[in-house]
Amino acid sequence: MTGRPRAKAPRIAALGGGQGLSASLSALRRLTTDLTAVVTVADDGGSSGRLRTELGVLPPGDLRKALAALCGDDDWGRTWSEVIQQRFSGTGELGGHAVGNLLIVALWEKLGDPVAALDWVGRLLNVQGRVLPMSAVPLDIEAVVRGHDPALPGELSAVRGQANVAVTPGTVQSIRLLPDAPPAVPEAVAAVREADWVVLGPGSWFTSVLPHLLVPDLAKALTETRARRLLTLNLAPQPGETEGFTPQRHLEVIADHAPELAVDAILVDERAVTGGAFGVADLAGLEKAAERMGAALVLDRVAAADGTPRHDRELLAAAYDRIFRTHGRIGPWR
Amino acid sequence: MTGRPRAKAPRIAALGGGQGLSASLSALRRLTTDLTAVVTVADDGGSSGRLRTELGVLPPGDLRKALAALCGDDDWGRTWSEVIQQRFSGTGELGGHAVGNLLIVALWEKLGDPVAALDWVGRLLNVQGRVLPMSAVPLDIEAVVRGHDPALPGELSAVRGQANVAVTPGTVQSIRLLPDAPPAVPEAVAAVREADWVVLGPGSWFTSVLPHLLVPDLAKALTETRARRLLTLNLAPQPGETEGFTPQRHLEVIADHAPELAVDAILVDERAVTGGAFGVADLAGLEKAAERMGAALVLDRVAAADGTPRHDRELLAAAYDRIFRTHGRIGPWR
Repeated sequence: MTGRPRAKAPRIAALGGGQGLSASLSALRRLTTDLTAVVTVADDGGSSGRLRTELGVLPPGDLRKALAALCGDDDWGRTWSEVIQQRFSGTGELGGHAVGNLLIVALWEKLGDPVAALDWVGRLLNVQGRVLPMSAVPLDIEAVVRGHDPALPGELSAVRGQANVAVTPGTVQSIRLLPDAPPAVPEAVAAVREADWVVLGPGSWFTSVLPHLLVPDLAKALTETRARRLLTLNLAPQPGETEGFTPQRHLEVIADHAPELAVDAILVDERAVTGGAFGVADLAGLEKAAERMGAALVLDRVAAADGTPRHDRELLAAAYDRIFRTHGRIGPWR
Repeated sequence: MTGRPRAKAPRIAALGGGQGLSASLSALRRLTTDLTAVVTVADDGGSSGRLRTELGVLPPGDLRKALAALCGDDDWGRTWSEVIQQRFSGTGELGGHAVGNLLIVALWEKLGDPVAALDWVGRLLNVQGRVLPMSAVPLDIEAVVRGHDPALPGELSAVRGQANVAVTPGTVQSIRLLPDAPPAVPEAVAAVREADWVVLGPGSWFTSVLPHLLVPDLAKALTETRARRLLTLNLAPQPGETEGFTPQRHLEVIADHAPELAVDAILVDERAVTGGAFGVADLAGLEKAAERMGAALVLDRVAAADGTPRHDRELLAAAYDRIFRTHGRIGPWR
């Protein structure tokens, strides 16, 4: 041990939903203890959808996954993380419900405060960081889709519901939230404003990544924050949601929905964008698209070794660490 | 502080189910930290009944209530106790289910070990003591009832299911368990054998108190244990189950079902048995019935002040304490 003061951990806000956010959180928790997840609340499928319908609550599923990803690194934290992730067997009343969804909803019913309830589950799991919903209002996604009806391939139509949008055979053009311009959770806004880095993505592009940009106070905070902004691209187009999309197109839809948003760095998997899952490489085009957002394009290797389009947690953590060191302001943690 | 060594807490096993066991546990926790609840698993009504039907598990409800009664005496323990006691609102898939029932069942599904799963919930609640099922097999109660069909008042018939027995308009004569002679949970047997005091009742006489005597290994342990045995009588006959029963009749049905069982003390509420809820007093008859079980009859005041047939926790604790001091062996805690 030298007398040098220990570097301060960076303050990070990670925005997204579903498995993509979980992957990002699993990587980021290796780099900091000051980590806030801001999670979409527009899911209407599966266990979350049933709970929304039955009880009119926020969809808890993506919040549960984020909590599980940040569970305490000991037997206690891991066991409760596994418990909340577990689903009831069978096809009865409970069949398919994730235990944690029920626990979160029960705490919402008990406390009447979505943030306080999630903090209790966070304490149960001894979570490293904090998990917040982006809005305290259950949201719906409505997408404009070209060719949603395969019989009318050129036609534009409105497709409502995250579960439906995720599996459309057409091409998603844009999305909007219902209700329009929902209120942001103040703690989520504060986390974005007070962060050193905000990380957006990876994840289902239209249904997990973009929704944050359509919550006005959150979008404003993203634009105005003193934090650096990192966008993490997916490793492949997503069947249904972004079928046939180039990496550039991914960036363009972000810019289409949030023209004011500047980004500092965009992390892409080198193989994925050079003839991998995205097909023919157009690195020059991708760099230009990044430049238009004000961002440095960072090529790294972050894909899982098994060839599936999942981020490897270790590699993603290493890539994030390099970006925070290279593209950050001279921060106290360097 | 004197140099006298601090008295050791008595080791207590409390047997029963439902609200009666909760009352007993709430009192006993004031007297010791070495407390094991042994809980009936024959409930087939409400949330527990639905879970049995859907998933084939033990009924968790009475176990949940016992855990809640022993929750840690701080904000953490009380909050999680309230959470597990909470029921979902509405009449949908989840409506009426207690959160803790779902959590216990999920842990059973995950761990495949009913005792280990309850220990995890115990740790969550920071429980003072331990809660065990009397058997790891879901049980049914079948009662012989006179006049279950009001049209045939003299007729004996078999009534199956705790929920049905509890509301019969007839008079319960006896009960048996299905399956017959179920295996006891070894930890429950050990708790009875190693206790200083075993406390049976109060509670629904046929469906929460008697079933323990019909689990052979548990009944054998109750007969053979070196512990003193205390039977706590209810404060009133229970509509349906023990409608019209005298206090003596309560003792007689215990003796009918477990002729070998000797009891050291029987605690009754003085007012209830002297012209109170049980009607005309017959103290001499009650004393004789107690004597036939080898027990001292202890009259005390343990009823809630509001006149409902519920035990007051403070008064019950004080009564238990007096009995443990007066009727116990010279124990290290005296």
